[in-house]
Amino acid sequence: MEPTSESRSDRKRQLLLNAATEIFLDKGYDGTTMEDVAMKAAVSKPTVYRFFSDKERLFAEIVRATTGEIDELVRLVVETMAEQTNVESALLVLARRFLSALMQPRVLRLRRLVMANAERFPDVGRSWYEQGFDRVLATLGTSFRSLSDRKLLRVDDPLLAASHFVGMLLWIPINKAMYTGDYRSRPGELERFAVAAVRAFLAGYGPASGSAPSPAARVRKRP
Amino acid sequence: MEPTSESRSDRKRQLLLNAATEIFLDKGYDGTTMEDVAMKAAVSKPTVYRFFSDKERLFAEIVRATTGEIDELVRLVVETMAEQTNVESALLVLARRFLSALMQPRVLRLRRLVMANAERFPDVGRSWYEQGFDRVLATLGTSFRSLSDRKLLRVDDPLLAASHFVGMLLWIPINKAMYTGDYRSRPGELERFAVAAVRAFLAGYGPASGSAPSPAARVRKRP
Repeated sequence: MEPTSESRSDRKRQLLLNAATEIFLDKGYDGTTMEDVAMKAAVSKPTVYRFFSDKERLFAEIVRATTGEIDELVRLVVETMAEQTNVESALLVLARRFLSALMQPRVLRLRRLVMANAERFPDVGRSWYEQGFDRVLATLGTSFRSLSDRKLLRVDDPLLAASHFVGMLLWIPINKAMYTGDYRSRPGELERFAVAAVRAFLAGYGPASGSAPSPAARVRKRP
Repeated sequence: MEPTSESRSDRKRQLLLNAATEIFLDKGYDGTTMEDVAMKAAVSKPTVYRFFSDKERLFAEIVRATTGEIDELVRLVVETMAEQTNVESALLVLARRFLSALMQPRVLRLRRLVMANAERFPDVGRSWYEQGFDRVLATLGTSFRSLSDRKLLRVDDPLLAASHFVGMLLWIPINKAMYTGDYRSRPGELERFAVAAVRAFLAGYGPASGSAPSPAARVRKRP
């Protein structure tokens, strides 16, 4: 069967998005021209404009297109946490997977690209925050709530607990990578962050014998 | 007494740095020209070049000059934590001060500027990471170690504990600001992050009655 003109057009659009993503990640927003994109995709400049009216639109599209990578992360959370009975080992697996997914140079560069342009294109940044950052946190929060219902964790505010887990895990490695640009972690360094975050998280939110309130809840009740 | 020519030159240099900082924060690295800086400082372009040989050098200098703002944060940590006997209230004061210092639009924009250019100028980013991010964390770690020595906290690895405190506190608000470019938080929102981070931190690292190992240490010892 011949490909329909619609599917050919979709393929060309995807080809342009891929080429544009590479250029934007490499050269940043200001350093990218529509001509670069045309050259990279081996099409004419008018072809680029036929699909994307201007550079701003193209930029918004390539950022939006990365929600696929977010879907991957969401699936990873759900699969890792579902039906686990040993919370500690599930969290450790999740911590390692988070680190290896988020510390990929491509993901870090995408994060840098969106942040760099957040003041210029707040809608693009907001959509990435809501569809990316927030969605992953919400999914993790849902897992924590379900573990809490099964008495495997003790969590009052699942979304905050999720941000505590991820914040403890990622604060040093993500910032180091974002600030230094050429971050390669030393062997064992990321594993140390994973183990420490899981340990501290369970110390605060882990189950205790009996039906005592969680340590986190106890602190709040102090006079 | 007449100002010496050295002090006049220092003042002019500082004037140029201030002007350049405003322009870089406003327009980013690519959007800034030496001509903009000259206009903002009301000097001639050759004057700018007499102090800074090129835009790259000027950028490195304005980033380095912000270590003054870091000193402020370091002093804040030391003063807040020194000689405290009520750790919970000290941490809460510190959490609020951290949030109000770091969530200032100017600080967030500086963070964005350095991150945005970290691949292009890794030395600038690395120096900011080491002199800024790392130094604040190390100072907080030293405070935690001293509180741990006085049995007011139970901390094995003070630097990691410091990153856990700060990561739990800042993960949502800093990322939200960095991605969305919108620095206004709802009333009470930051206070909620402060209270929750202190609570979860003390649940994991707080003192317990007697000389039992900390909850965080306990988790490690599980078979």
